[in-house]
Amino acid sequence: MSKTNKSHGRLAIRPTLRARELMTNTPDIVGVWKAKVITLFPESFPGVLDRSLTGKALQDGLWQLETIQLRGYGIGKHKDVDHPPAGGGAGMVLKPDVVGAALADARRATPVDPKAWPVVYMSPRGKPLTQAMAQEFSQAQGMTILCGRFEGVDERVLEEYNVQEVSLGDFVLTGGEIAAQAVIDATVRLLPNVLGNADSTVDESHSNGLLEHPQYTKPAEWQGRKIPEVLLSGHHGNVDKWRRGMAEKLTKERRPDMWKAYQARKDT
Amino acid sequence: MSKTNKSHGRLAIRPTLRARELMTNTPDIVGVWKAKVITLFPESFPGVLDRSLTGKALQDGLWQLETIQLRGYGIGKHKDVDHPPAGGGAGMVLKPDVVGAALADARRATPVDPKAWPVVYMSPRGKPLTQAMAQEFSQAQGMTILCGRFEGVDERVLEEYNVQEVSLGDFVLTGGEIAAQAVIDATVRLLPNVLGNADSTVDESHSNGLLEHPQYTKPAEWQGRKIPEVLLSGHHGNVDKWRRGMAEKLTKERRPDMWKAYQARKDT
Repeated sequence: MSKTNKSHGRLAIRPTLRARELMTNTPDIVGVWKAKVITLFPESFPGVLDRSLTGKALQDGLWQLETIQLRGYGIGKHKDVDHPPAGGGAGMVLKPDVVGAALADARRATPVDPKAWPVVYMSPRGKPLTQAMAQEFSQAQGMTILCGRFEGVDERVLEEYNVQEVSLGDFVLTGGEIAAQAVIDATVRLLPNVLGNADSTVDESHSNGLLEHPQYTKPAEWQGRKIPEVLLSGHHGNVDKWRRGMAEKLTKERRPDMWKAYQARKDT
Repeated sequence: MSKTNKSHGRLAIRPTLRARELMTNTPDIVGVWKAKVITLFPESFPGVLDRSLTGKALQDGLWQLETIQLRGYGIGKHKDVDHPPAGGGAGMVLKPDVVGAALADARRATPVDPKAWPVVYMSPRGKPLTQAMAQEFSQAQGMTILCGRFEGVDERVLEEYNVQEVSLGDFVLTGGEIAAQAVIDATVRLLPNVLGNADSTVDESHSNGLLEHPQYTKPAEWQGRKIPEVLLSGHHGNVDKWRRGMAEKLTKERRPDMWKAYQARKDT
């Protein structure tokens, strides 16, 4: 077995059996959105997702989390998951046979349609995550997230499994775990009943194409700085007008790109 | 005291004493980059940052982490940190006096110059995080990161403490903790000696204005898919040329915005 795996020119074949103990399951509830996360660091999940709204929702069974330990698919005595890049260069690349076996297992009992069950790889090469994308993910039955490490993943496994590359933004992280938690957080808070009635998502940044207006709360004066008069007036029409004006002003100043898109939408 | 705090129109005054037990310190090492994180969930740190390269670097004293429990600055019997927004609306806003006291404590013994010690608030209204920004942060002595929750933070405290708003991207998270971990991860890996010699940051996405080329590793054939011939040729010039071509092609296809900026830079 180890001889076959060490041959660069041979097709490594391994059974896709996976021990149950490789998985961390919350009880599987049919019809409840689920994140399956393939990672070398399953112990880092749920991480901060077990706190606050996402944590309460996890306990309440409003979403489910399963981690899949990539190391469990490692090859040979040392459970190798990576190897230097073909063609040379720095770092290590996650092997296609190893990642492929994990993705094959993750795919069991999940829909193949990427609308119903997106399979994403967190990568700075990917499509930047947006609120609209999080909305799409929240309308799926669940999703599988592959967390990379090192220099990335063999390209062939991304092709074979029709994996979408998703990026948090134009910066590089040590691995995909924090990015995966961001995707899950952004998605889970859009699931039904996760946010309380009081926590509307309607006014917040990126929901209406504008950045959110400034917020104030008591005390009315702090360090010589006062809450803007209009917010204490009790006149709802004026409050709304002021907030809309501030949201537009902020967006124009800080994000000319968003402002342009907002204007274009308004004109049609 | 609680009467004063309940008055919307009065300036609440509280001493800025902070018990040492509110802080989680790694030993303070002069000259070593430090992240101070103000959060309601200090127990979620370092989280995944204690793994892999960032975790090893933390153990080796190449960077330091201090969490500051915002709840410790809460007001009254219930240690309130938030209050409904002035002018009405959904959710709760973090109070300026509470956040201000935490920021004042965090500022002790740190430079006031925002280049030497940036103070950032993770917010979808902020400037999107980029690799260039992470590079600037890594050249500072350290940084303070305020993690929001609920509907945000009173605007006055952001003004008073000259806080930079930084966004992970155009999506909304339940809180700033995951975003803070992303900023720290992106920054720490750029500190001296954190990445091994083998893990160059030169070729990676967003370092040269291009997305990274595809990577491959053994086996040479997997699921009928082969590693591109040129990568196995041993001809370094051809490998480099192929990789550059693929990086340009990917960037052009996936990120016309980056491609345009790259072209503009090349022409000057």
